[in-house]
Amino acid sequence: MSEVLARYDLDRVTIATLASHSSLQIFHGAKLEGFGTVAIVPRDRLWFYEQFRHLIDHFIVLNNWRELCSPDVVRKLQSLNAILVPHGSYVEYVGLDCAEGIELPIFGLRGLFRVESDQWAKMDLLRRAGIPIPRLFSVGDDVDGPVIVKLPGAKGGRGYFIARSGEEVARGVEERVKEGLVKTPKDAIVQEYLIGVPVYIHYFHSPILGRVEILGADIRYETNIDGLRRLTPDIIVEMGLKPTFVVVGNIPLVLRESLLPRVLDYGIRFVEETRRSLPPGVIGPFSLEGVIDDEANIRIFEFSGRIVAGTNLYVYGSPYSYLYWGEPMSMGRRIAREIRMAIEKDELNRVVT
Amino acid sequence: MSEVLARYDLDRVTIATLASHSSLQIFHGAKLEGFGTVAIVPRDRLWFYEQFRHLIDHFIVLNNWRELCSPDVVRKLQSLNAILVPHGSYVEYVGLDCAEGIELPIFGLRGLFRVESDQWAKMDLLRRAGIPIPRLFSVGDDVDGPVIVKLPGAKGGRGYFIARSGEEVARGVEERVKEGLVKTPKDAIVQEYLIGVPVYIHYFHSPILGRVEILGADIRYETNIDGLRRLTPDIIVEMGLKPTFVVVGNIPLVLRESLLPRVLDYGIRFVEETRRSLPPGVIGPFSLEGVIDDEANIRIFEFSGRIVAGTNLYVYGSPYSYLYWGEPMSMGRRIAREIRMAIEKDELNRVVT
Amino acid sequence: MSEVLARYDLDRVTIATLASHSSLQIFHGAKLEGFGTVAIVPRDRLWFYEQFRHLIDHFIVLNNWRELCSPDVVRKLQSLNAILVPHGSYVEYVGLDCAEGIELPIFGLRGLFRVESDQWAKMDLLRRAGIPIPRLFSVGDDVDGPVIVKLPGAKGGRGYFIARSGEEVARGVEERVKEGLVKTPKDAIVQEYLIGVPVYIHYFHSPILGRVEILGADIRYETNIDGLRRLTPDIIVEMGLKPTFVVVGNIPLVLRESLLPRVLDYGIRFVEETRRSLPPGVIGPFSLEGVIDDEANIRIFEFSGRIVAGTNLYVYGSPYSYLYWGEPMSMGRRIAREIRMAIEKDELNRVVT
Repeated sequence: MSEVLARYDLDRVTIATLASHSSLQIFHGAKLEGFGTVAIVPRDRLWFYEQFRHLIDHFIVLNNWRELCSPDVVRKLQSLNAILVPHGSYVEYVGLDCAEGIELPIFGLRGLFRVESDQWAKMDLLRRAGIPIPRLFSVGDDVDGPVIVKLPGAKGGRGYFIARSGEEVARGVEERVKEGLVKTPKDAIVQEYLIGVPVYIHYFHSPILGRVEILGADIRYETNIDGLRRLTPDIIVEMGLKPTFVVVGNIPLVLRESLLPRVLDYGIRFVEETRRSLPPGVIGPFSLEGVIDDEANIRIFEFSGRIVAGTNLYVYGSPYSYLYWGEPMSMGRRIAREIRMAIEKDELNRVVT
Repeated sequence: MSEVLARYDLDRVTIATLASHSSLQIFHGAKLEGFGTVAIVPRDRLWFYEQFRHLIDHFIVLNNWRELCSPDVVRKLQSLNAILVPHGSYVEYVGLDCAEGIELPIFGLRGLFRVESDQWAKMDLLRRAGIPIPRLFSVGDDVDGPVIVKLPGAKGGRGYFIARSGEEVARGVEERVKEGLVKTPKDAIVQEYLIGVPVYIHYFHSPILGRVEILGADIRYETNIDGLRRLTPDIIVEMGLKPTFVVVGNIPLVLRESLLPRVLDYGIRFVEETRRSLPPGVIGPFSLEGVIDDEANIRIFEFSGRIVAGTNLYVYGSPYSYLYWGEPMSMGRRIAREIRMAIEKDELNRVVT
Repeated sequence: MSEVLARYDLDRVTIATLASHSSLQIFHGAKLEGFGTVAIVPRDRLWFYEQFRHLIDHFIVLNNWRELCSPDVVRKLQSLNAILVPHGSYVEYVGLDCAEGIELPIFGLRGLFRVESDQWAKMDLLRRAGIPIPRLFSVGDDVDGPVIVKLPGAKGGRGYFIARSGEEVARGVEERVKEGLVKTPKDAIVQEYLIGVPVYIHYFHSPILGRVEILGADIRYETNIDGLRRLTPDIIVEMGLKPTFVVVGNIPLVLRESLLPRVLDYGIRFVEETRRSLPPGVIGPFSLEGVIDDEANIRIFEFSGRIVAGTNLYVYGSPYSYLYWGEPMSMGRRIAREIRMAIEKDELNRVVT
């Protein structure tokens, strides 16, 4: 992207993102750091984002997300000196080819998108990093004890299910293929179901400061599983209710301070492994998603190489970000701060790919 | 109330509320916006509110809540140029007739109190607004699948119960009548039990700015249901423990950003329907309470036309209020800010009824 | 400690604590109030705390926690004019004798450590304070209804279990002795299992201002119990999964305002009883941990005489602390503020023991 960047007026850089997921926080943070902002927004959501006109300087209206990579849109964004911030829904919305190939400077590691689209490659990256992960199986393998089956293309937790035997795995996959929820069951990943509590940890890798920050943690609020607990077991069993895991919100969490050194160690390992295998390595926000058991072991079952929606809890800063920064520092603002620092040091090429 | 208001010294307006529910936040917000404050407080809680003397300029001490509408108290409040902020416990504490008839300017829509006292009228208002609601039944109807029975006069979730058949509904109502928990079972509302996760969304309608703001969201913390999850199913079943739904606290929540356009749309529909059927329509805080299912449908099973206790989470502002206001903006402060703006524009009559 | 304190340069007081539990918040708050800070840190965690060098002025590196009481370390701390802030892990880490006997001014009530190490003495203190507690039993007693068995020396909730009969109690204790989890089963306390929801309330007793403040509340996030709710009852039963209660994090909570007078009353009773039986009584942070049932009764099953980890949620202040202070006031900062006020009034001896 160095060519595109070379034509940018660095005094007039704008921060652009798809209007969804964590975009309000990204716009908000960008304004606090003095940047202009660009909302790339589907026509039917425009009215909503216009409520936040004080946070958004430019609207680029699309008929559908895929138009992001059309020459007109890209040219418009380049003319606004836009740096694109890819959030958790970016690849899902625009597709992998556009996400990866777009001719705009991206704040983050472009090369990670392809890894993230393959559950097996993701787990392999974690393993190479030396981060503990659950045991893995394929559809068809014999399994003992509960597993969670993650079907490719099943969005937002839909199509995830728990099984207790190889037979249950196969049956569950078959059902979901029939329902049209998934297309390529052979790419499914079957993970040991970890007994413990889930945690979602928000990190930021700063190439400019040369450090990894823990900026927050959350718990997901998932339908219908978090509602089922409101029903007595007899009702759940009698009605044959099956748990689903579709994320609709997030709840704040702090972790025991004695866990934080390990948590930070995992974050650093993640950065180092991406540096080795996908140079220059992850830039800015990422998330490790794990389960803590009652021996205080933390195993990571998933990661995201971009800003996760749980950070929306901390628009006014998190308990952790306040420790580092002493001012309200959301992940959105942290991104803008990194870009600001990079521009001031004339090192923008170190934070975009 | 225009007559009472005409005698007010608008340079010396005070904010008054019943000392309970969300009053500390209301006082706190009022002080930040430069208002004097009046706590209307039962004698036995006076010692507690005196801990917050820095937030409260005047105490009006009652022997019981019903004294609010006594001529002395009303006269005293008028002499303090008081605007009364009705919170979620207001009608319950002082009774509908006093609540509705009190000769004081009320920040909010007085005409909504009567609707709120009738579960059927409430659901009808939501339906007319075009907001999706659960299916409704009466006691005696045949029901298929689980329902939640809401008995009138059963406070704070006591007397709510889940049933799976018309027979179970009838039996549960009968039991609660015997226990003296309810008096008029025929007014009970029986709602389809929505499978999904509950969310409570805090809105603010600003007549002065002509907009609806999403100011926060929460989950309720209910006894004993949120404790039962700490017991294994076999213990719950064996002990015959029955879930109860008495709200004792609130937990913060943010929603997926992609849900927010729909959430705001519902809020706007609510405002518009109250404008049509109860002009001038809802003013200031209100809440929609719904369930999100795993297809991301949101159905609303309840509303409040006043400030809800979940806003107590956000005395220092919520992730959403910060996006709108860029400073710590609680619901209590937002109320005071609206009154302040109305006074400055000489439009106070647009925000009180 | 008056002798040690007499040699201190009160213009150069530092705040020292063990680098764990809630230490980042304590350092952070101390800096905001203008104090130097001292991290007492095991060698293997030094790298982690060095990330927060901006909050920590001095590192005292230990090979193990017990070295805290070695003459060299104590002398070093005295030379830094250090006031030691004991947090929730202090006694567990350094042992009761060192904790109690260390020749440093401690912010808090030194005499409470011994009481806290004895479950029976703790419950007795609460009872004498007039605070409602659960019914208590010993191992070997007949019990009716569920009880929770708390084994001495079982750390972080490990070894706690629920039983429904005297026989189950005996069997559970025996198992855990075999596993080496506990050594002195006869000191176990068996408490009535309270049906309702758990709450953890953070208080601060200010000798300088002569008041008790409610500074926050939280819910604990415990493995594996908070994870089991994600599994359907049939799976839990079939797999024979047993709930464990190891705290790994905390979730924010606000309580219904109508509960706060009782909550504050309990806090005041606690302070008064410690004044009577352990003069000068508790100083600074303490916590009452209880269950609220569906009649809104609150019974307290546990207390801590020091800062609890749940306060880590509120590094930027809690909904409650903001009401008292009108600025971001964490428990860590509140401690430093109290010390600052004490120094300014020349009353430091009233807040250290």
